[in-house]
Amino acid sequence: MKISHIEHIGIAVKSLEEAIPFYENMLGLKCYSVEEVADQKVKTAFFQVGQTKIELLESTGPDGTIAKFIEKRGEGIHHLAYAVESGVNQALTEVEAKGVQLLDKQARKGAEGMNIAFLHPKSTQGILTEFCEKGEK
Amino acid sequence: MKISHIEHIGIAVKSLEEAIPFYENMLGLKCYSVEEVADQKVKTAFFQVGQTKIELLESTGPDGTIAKFIEKRGEGIHHLAYAVESGVNQALTEVEAKGVQLLDKQARKGAEGMNIAFLHPKSTQGILTEFCEKGEK
Repeated sequence: MKISHIEHIGIAVKSLEEAIPFYENMLGLKCYSVEEVADQKVKTAFFQVGQTKIELLESTGPDGTIAKFIEKRGEGIHHLAYAVESGVNQALTEVEAKGVQLLDKQARKGAEGMNIAFLHPKSTQGILTEFCEKGEK
Repeated sequence: MKISHIEHIGIAVKSLEEAIPFYENMLGLKCYSVEEVADQKVKTAFFQVGQTKIELLESTGPDGTIAKFIEKRGEGIHHLAYAVESGVNQALTEVEAKGVQLLDKQARKGAEGMNIAFLHPKSTQGILTEFCEKGEK
């Protein structure tokens, strides 16, 4: 497996409407996209920071994973996504063979048309970890 | 203020000895440096991932901030550090004028000789946020 860079950092927020101005006005970043990912019950907002994106995540319902995360831990960093050059499915096979517990056995579609898959935080020192690659691959 | 990239992601771990093999053997990253920062009571391990570093943080004592963080929240992402091109002190002045609460009023020395300063997570949607720049500036 070859990881090229941190693709994005997923941040759970209560409200995009409140959080976006922080990133724009305080940090001088520019929100270039707001997108709803219906099957994950989230609305996302993206900011490019060098090679890496900040992905703000607001739950679209009280039973969504982001709503539950915030209820349990408060707002904050939700997951860390690595860009894998050799493909998500191959990376999953590799880490599973080494004993990592997977949340997704196969890549699926995420925001921005990326192919994504999550590893279980129990296997990754408490960090919900995502592998991703561009969808056209 | 101009943020160029995510300089590093600080991750609180119980044991570098246990965590380093995960990043090396599972993710294929290479630990290029282990350094103790005595005044912060941490031992750090660094991995380069594209523009961004993963900084693993192990407390050197039970009263250190990393030990307290793990006691309260478990292992996981501890802070997010932005590289500011225009200098840390100028960035602090800018965000303080806009109402952000600071943990450091002025830049101080951090790991790798960087000039660093932290913002209060109360002002940043729960994320301990760091500004940093190379020390020679």
